[in-house]
Amino acid sequence: MFASDKVTLIAGPCSVETREQVFAAAKAVKEAGIKIFRGGAYKPRTSPYSFQGLGDEGLELLVEAAKNYGLMTVTEVTEVDVLEKVHEKIDVIQVGARNMDNYSLLKKIGAITAESKKWVLLKRSFAATIEELLLAAEYILSAGNPNVILCERGIRTFEHATRFTLDLNAVPVLKKLSTLPVVVDVSHGTGRADMLIPMSRAAIAAGADGVMIEAHPNPKEALCDGQQSLQTSHLKEWVEECRKVASVLGKSLY
Amino acid sequence: MFASDKVTLIAGPCSVETREQVFAAAKAVKEAGIKIFRGGAYKPRTSPYSFQGLGDEGLELLVEAAKNYGLMTVTEVTEVDVLEKVHEKIDVIQVGARNMDNYSLLKKIGAITAESKKWVLLKRSFAATIEELLLAAEYILSAGNPNVILCERGIRTFEHATRFTLDLNAVPVLKKLSTLPVVVDVSHGTGRADMLIPMSRAAIAAGADGVMIEAHPNPKEALCDGQQSLQTSHLKEWVEECRKVASVLGKSLY
Amino acid sequence: MFASDKVTLIAGPCSVETREQVFAAAKAVKEAGIKIFRGGAYKPRTSPYSFQGLGDEGLELLVEAAKNYGLMTVTEVTEVDVLEKVHEKIDVIQVGARNMDNYSLLKKIGAITAESKKWVLLKRSFAATIEELLLAAEYILSAGNPNVILCERGIRTFEHATRFTLDLNAVPVLKKLSTLPVVVDVSHGTGRADMLIPMSRAAIAAGADGVMIEAHPNPKEALCDGQQSLQTSHLKEWVEECRKVASVLGKSLY
Amino acid sequence: MFASDKVTLIAGPCSVETREQVFAAAKAVKEAGIKIFRGGAYKPRTSPYSFQGLGDEGLELLVEAAKNYGLMTVTEVTEVDVLEKVHEKIDVIQVGARNMDNYSLLKKIGAITAESKKWVLLKRSFAATIEELLLAAEYILSAGNPNVILCERGIRTFEHATRFTLDLNAVPVLKKLSTLPVVVDVSHGTGRADMLIPMSRAAIAAGADGVMIEAHPNPKEALCDGQQSLQTSHLKEWVEECRKVASVLGKSLY
Repeated sequence: MFASDKVTLIAGPCSVETREQVFAAAKAVKEAGIKIFRGGAYKPRTSPYSFQGLGDEGLELLVEAAKNYGLMTVTEVTEVDVLEKVHEKIDVIQVGARNMDNYSLLKKIGAITAESKKWVLLKRSFAATIEELLLAAEYILSAGNPNVILCERGIRTFEHATRFTLDLNAVPVLKKLSTLPVVVDVSHGTGRADMLIPMSRAAIAAGADGVMIEAHPNPKEALCDGQQSLQTSHLKEWVEECRKVASVLGKSLY
Repeated sequence: MFASDKVTLIAGPCSVETREQVFAAAKAVKEAGIKIFRGGAYKPRTSPYSFQGLGDEGLELLVEAAKNYGLMTVTEVTEVDVLEKVHEKIDVIQVGARNMDNYSLLKKIGAITAESKKWVLLKRSFAATIEELLLAAEYILSAGNPNVILCERGIRTFEHATRFTLDLNAVPVLKKLSTLPVVVDVSHGTGRADMLIPMSRAAIAAGADGVMIEAHPNPKEALCDGQQSLQTSHLKEWVEECRKVASVLGKSLY
Repeated sequence: MFASDKVTLIAGPCSVETREQVFAAAKAVKEAGIKIFRGGAYKPRTSPYSFQGLGDEGLELLVEAAKNYGLMTVTEVTEVDVLEKVHEKIDVIQVGARNMDNYSLLKKIGAITAESKKWVLLKRSFAATIEELLLAAEYILSAGNPNVILCERGIRTFEHATRFTLDLNAVPVLKKLSTLPVVVDVSHGTGRADMLIPMSRAAIAAGADGVMIEAHPNPKEALCDGQQSLQTSHLKEWVEECRKVASVLGKSLY
Repeated sequence: MFASDKVTLIAGPCSVETREQVFAAAKAVKEAGIKIFRGGAYKPRTSPYSFQGLGDEGLELLVEAAKNYGLMTVTEVTEVDVLEKVHEKIDVIQVGARNMDNYSLLKKIGAITAESKKWVLLKRSFAATIEELLLAAEYILSAGNPNVILCERGIRTFEHATRFTLDLNAVPVLKKLSTLPVVVDVSHGTGRADMLIPMSRAAIAAGADGVMIEAHPNPKEALCDGQQSLQTSHLKEWVEECRKVASVLGKSLY
């Protein structure tokens, strides 16, 4: 999945909302030539009064849709209670930015993946230094699972024209300090759908091993993060733009 | 414990290290006239290779020392596994800055304290806005426990002369937006023992309902955060300075 | 003016607007027992389309009003062209946060005050580290004028509940690294009139040698920064609060 | 120089140091196919004790070297005193990040270029929002000179693995809000020579109209910013990488 001559693309909705929505998204992802499908079942939300995700039902729908279209899956695990289930059913276990400092969760992910060697996509907290991201990865690596993906997704700064400040400097720094693959989450790093294509190109040009975006069949009606989701009808254009920049670096898409 | 005419003081070591150390600290806290004793048993550490706390043994030592000297206790709960035990034995359950966004933990704390109404000291994440701190508190309040203490402990900025930038502006802002008590953790907010007294005075002058510091019988040999711990022999001076500023606002110490 | 047992208060309008306004402000400042009167004649504004200050006419009005009430004056010098005039007529030359990095201006202020030894109030840029503030002061000190006042006025962070994040940690840090007096500009550091009293108390409690606020006879009609200006009718209350905290530290007001 | 199908490259030493150095740099810039040569004569330095640039002599050397190799010139104007001279001799007048808020200087640049319509390269202050950069540009635009280049050069954040955090998000945001060309200064935005090529590629991929780097014949002996300067022997490789990414966007190099 990750190799020095590959750029890996990941797309899918912020949240699994309905069977219809997740199947439509999976179909579009497949047709655009993308192999990895993301979708949130368990959502960590700033307010207890916001939509919290479909939970177990969402997980089942994600897996079913991915299977139907032959896609690999990524989903976020927000708590220990759901880890076993997610580990069993999902290909790539995501740790969200808000849980990068949840060392208890990291240790348990390390333990459960020590044998399976399943991929763990570890997002940088929006307040973490690059060094702290690498130390958080050590919680999993030191348990015996070498398959950690480092994910830059924007840091918190005084600039509020964008949701976060995407720190693309982190890409060459991480590539120098570590051999782990580096993926950039452009949706959270910008917060704006109109910036997904240019900033995906930029991430790849900076040397990222992969790019992840949120994509939704109908962003205006999304229950979560619609403003930073690509309409699935634009996925082919996104893939094409990524392919062209990847080729400049002698890479092809995965 | 909290009232409009009181300033509550909390002191104790970053970590429980040995029986001797925790008893010495508790004795000094008691003799300085402080009523609430803090100490970490379960420590969330940036690196998996750092000292991780004594765990259950640390909890027992903390409780024993506090009981011996008639003190109330505060300790951090870092994961769901230890919540029941901490809830049973400790007076004030602390949520650390790195767990403010751990909504799964917050929900469980809300559930377990819904009946007991035990105090929860919720630290602001060093990357959280004031609004996000208030929304995190809602996870506990909405479960039925009104006893949440909001704790400012420094935010992350470009300034590196101090460990964090203590945001005392947050004190009057929080007092305006909420009726919950506001405590300032001056040790983490500065990272420097030589600043604990002036910044404790400043926190009280800004209107804080309480101040918390780390204190150790021998900071130079502390296993954790020694550079930001007051030597316990200076606790009386600290209390006296706090008392004088509190009196300006018509408050007495608790 | 500055001494280890004094806290110096400075108040006055953001901008000199009219003769009536500046005289009313000066009268209120005098009656509250404050000795130093601030007011802006030359205003650096983010947008060229905002009110830019009255210029030379504002300077004359400020001086006249101060003389009438026996007050010392502080005003900002925004460019070299007005430096000679300001140096001649004003007691304390202010360098604004946006000009802390204007080394050309700093050198010229150093040169012109090398003999007169007039006080220079140097504001910390909202993006400057404490070390950079001290190095900026060196531009004046190394010219031969030892009378530099360091002014903390808030730094830029991700928190937007307040206009800036007042970095009171800077007060004890600066007092440790330097013998220069440290003043806190509470109006810019909070951006909110309702926070001026608590944060002035906090600044003094942290060890500041002085506090500066904006005060206006009618903040709602101010042409500039009305939301962070104390109504002059509250100046006596402000002075009283400052006096009480100063006395805790064994200081009296200047 | 700027057009929707062009990417403009700018390179040259941080400071003009000696005749030999500036001629060697100009030669290498020319041979790499770059048309615009940068070099600092008047240097704004954080400390008065650091190297302050060669001043007028540096300006003459820069102009001479550029003329000899048929290059256009960019140099920073740090104060009003040198503006007339720089305006007369230099093709692109640079305003440094520390002077973006020096509205007095901006107004004078607006006045002097109102007729000549000379290009002004306006760097974003490392503490300025995107909106503030656009408002600073208004100081020149509103004077009648439409030829302003907006330059992103990194903002100040908590991350210290790089000198500043290069905010490439600013590129698509600025392109959306304004018709002015957007250039990225990759040397200041990263502070590291080993990141200049990947981040230049990223800047172009994000949609920048140009990229600027510092280049020195012998970075290890540079009097200023050697650690973020490309060795001139690598300029051809840099140009080639920029060309390839530009071509993906249907652009050629200027």
